[in-house]
Amino acid sequence: MANIKDVARAAQVSVSTVSRVVNGSARVAPEKRKAVLEALDTLNYQPNSLARALVNRRSNTIGLMVGELGSPFFSQLMSGADQVAVEGGRSLMMMSGFNDAEREEAALSALQQRQCDALIIHAKGLSDERLQAVAKGSTPVIFVNRLVPGFEHRSIYLDNVHGAYLATRHLLGRGHRKIAFIRSNLDHVADVSERLSGYRKALEEFDVTYDEAYVVSAFPNEDGGNEAMSHLLETHQDFTAVMAYNDVMAAGAIGLLLDSGFEIPNDVSIVGFDDVVITKYLRPRLTTIHYPIEEMGRTAARLALQILDNKPELKPEQLKFNPRLVVRNSVRTQR
Amino acid sequence: MANIKDVARAAQVSVSTVSRVVNGSARVAPEKRKAVLEALDTLNYQPNSLARALVNRRSNTIGLMVGELGSPFFSQLMSGADQVAVEGGRSLMMMSGFNDAEREEAALSALQQRQCDALIIHAKGLSDERLQAVAKGSTPVIFVNRLVPGFEHRSIYLDNVHGAYLATRHLLGRGHRKIAFIRSNLDHVADVSERLSGYRKALEEFDVTYDEAYVVSAFPNEDGGNEAMSHLLETHQDFTAVMAYNDVMAAGAIGLLLDSGFEIPNDVSIVGFDDVVITKYLRPRLTTIHYPIEEMGRTAARLALQILDNKPELKPEQLKFNPRLVVRNSVRTQR
Repeated sequence: MANIKDVARAAQVSVSTVSRVVNGSARVAPEKRKAVLEALDTLNYQPNSLARALVNRRSNTIGLMVGELGSPFFSQLMSGADQVAVEGGRSLMMMSGFNDAEREEAALSALQQRQCDALIIHAKGLSDERLQAVAKGSTPVIFVNRLVPGFEHRSIYLDNVHGAYLATRHLLGRGHRKIAFIRSNLDHVADVSERLSGYRKALEEFDVTYDEAYVVSAFPNEDGGNEAMSHLLETHQDFTAVMAYNDVMAAGAIGLLLDSGFEIPNDVSIVGFDDVVITKYLRPRLTTIHYPIEEMGRTAARLALQILDNKPELKPEQLKFNPRLVVRNSVRTQR
Repeated sequence: MANIKDVARAAQVSVSTVSRVVNGSARVAPEKRKAVLEALDTLNYQPNSLARALVNRRSNTIGLMVGELGSPFFSQLMSGADQVAVEGGRSLMMMSGFNDAEREEAALSALQQRQCDALIIHAKGLSDERLQAVAKGSTPVIFVNRLVPGFEHRSIYLDNVHGAYLATRHLLGRGHRKIAFIRSNLDHVADVSERLSGYRKALEEFDVTYDEAYVVSAFPNEDGGNEAMSHLLETHQDFTAVMAYNDVMAAGAIGLLLDSGFEIPNDVSIVGFDDVVITKYLRPRLTTIHYPIEEMGRTAARLALQILDNKPELKPEQLKFNPRLVVRNSVRTQR
């Protein structure tokens, strides 16, 4: 049976070039890669990269666990991380954890078993304790969209309370006092209580009493936003503005409002959260909170590369991102 | 150093349960998984899954290569495949190939090196010959959005010519004769020439002369659609309708038209292609060609499971998907 030296000889390249091709590194000249692949084919060599990964302990792959695959939020996270990883000569390998502890555990162990050199983790199901244990293992770990105590230097996150506060304060500043809040029903996700806190904090600041009748829970996607708005209309809540947990819920709510004959922002004002790409397509253009998720994905990959290349790491203050209000056309001044 | 039997003893489970946990299989009871993970922690066992994968040749993981991570089209493909894979007790591991031969090659070898039991491949850069060689290897391969000659039984695809024909015929049937075509500039992607063929075929059927001045190329995203429409307006083309290569290009074109004071469909009619989720957010609602990409992702994962479980496979006719015109509100009758 052919071994790696036979392949190198046939392809007229070094053993380390064969190794890089076999390990999926991007750092190989196209013509060399082609020669190696042809030699692998010709010699019918089954590249034993697993054994090799055990020896050199490097797979040139960074693992990324996301919450779900179908949402624009995670598309942007993956896309940002992937660009930086590939520029750094690494590959990015992704799995989803469905924001569920059990599935996150399975995805993490699958990624670890494949000798990822580093892991970027977006986990909303697993506890801080469990994530701390994972981070203490031999594979460097970076957390995205979560501040894991003791791992501030490896946690990339956004201040959700402040984001929801900014959104609600914007509505209050424009004269709105009856502000409904369409929230996510995924109670175990910290973002949910954080955004609710920001909403309440702004109300307090303006001496507006918090009223549970204005707060409706639904699944955090477009259908959920649609259902929540339908509930608000059916129970005849006299709101003039809506704060949505995220942009897709806002889009669902807007769809129902427009289809029911309401004008936005003339009849109802609305603010989203995340500033995902879909907001480009909404008319009127959605006022929202910018969540720099693609930049956070890039930062996560950059930090992973720094760790793997033994370079100075980004400082904790560079890992905390600030939400920002983006004013477009979905809020009017209420008199 | 602890071995797998020590872990099984400590966790009071069988060796095969430890193996399933270590290999990331979803088929483990929660309490057993927890016990195994605790034992792994306590014994500081570095699970040598790579060696194990070499022995049992099963990783319970299906690899999926997509074109890019940031687009809703691929989100839907990944999401559909992931659901079915997880239901079948497997994990799905994804990498992107950027629709580029070199990068697709790197992503494929990275996935193969990690002992994926099967590969689902969305490749637009690699040649049929190269893909045939990959498919002849020991790992079962399924192609999505591409018909690879000789692998019809493993190719899941859509008739692009017919889709573009349906879209253009719809505009012609509504009386339009001056129909611009905003196309993708990724000429190596077969879909591009196929959709152009469909457009020309419908024009011919209605005795409308093909006019290159109506055909504008741009990158197949929202910005590209915007630029293409800007070019059409600047060169004063007297079109009454637009056929877009895909929905995101249509969205970009619509954005520019609305911002320039045009009404849709009163001034300009437009038809998209793909029916991706963003079409939900467009107003007027976009008439488009439904591309069942999520269902195709599910079918790909289903076929992978059938192959791995040695069950009868889906027939070639179940792998060919038909495009379907979805009439919404973006086309008016031209008199």
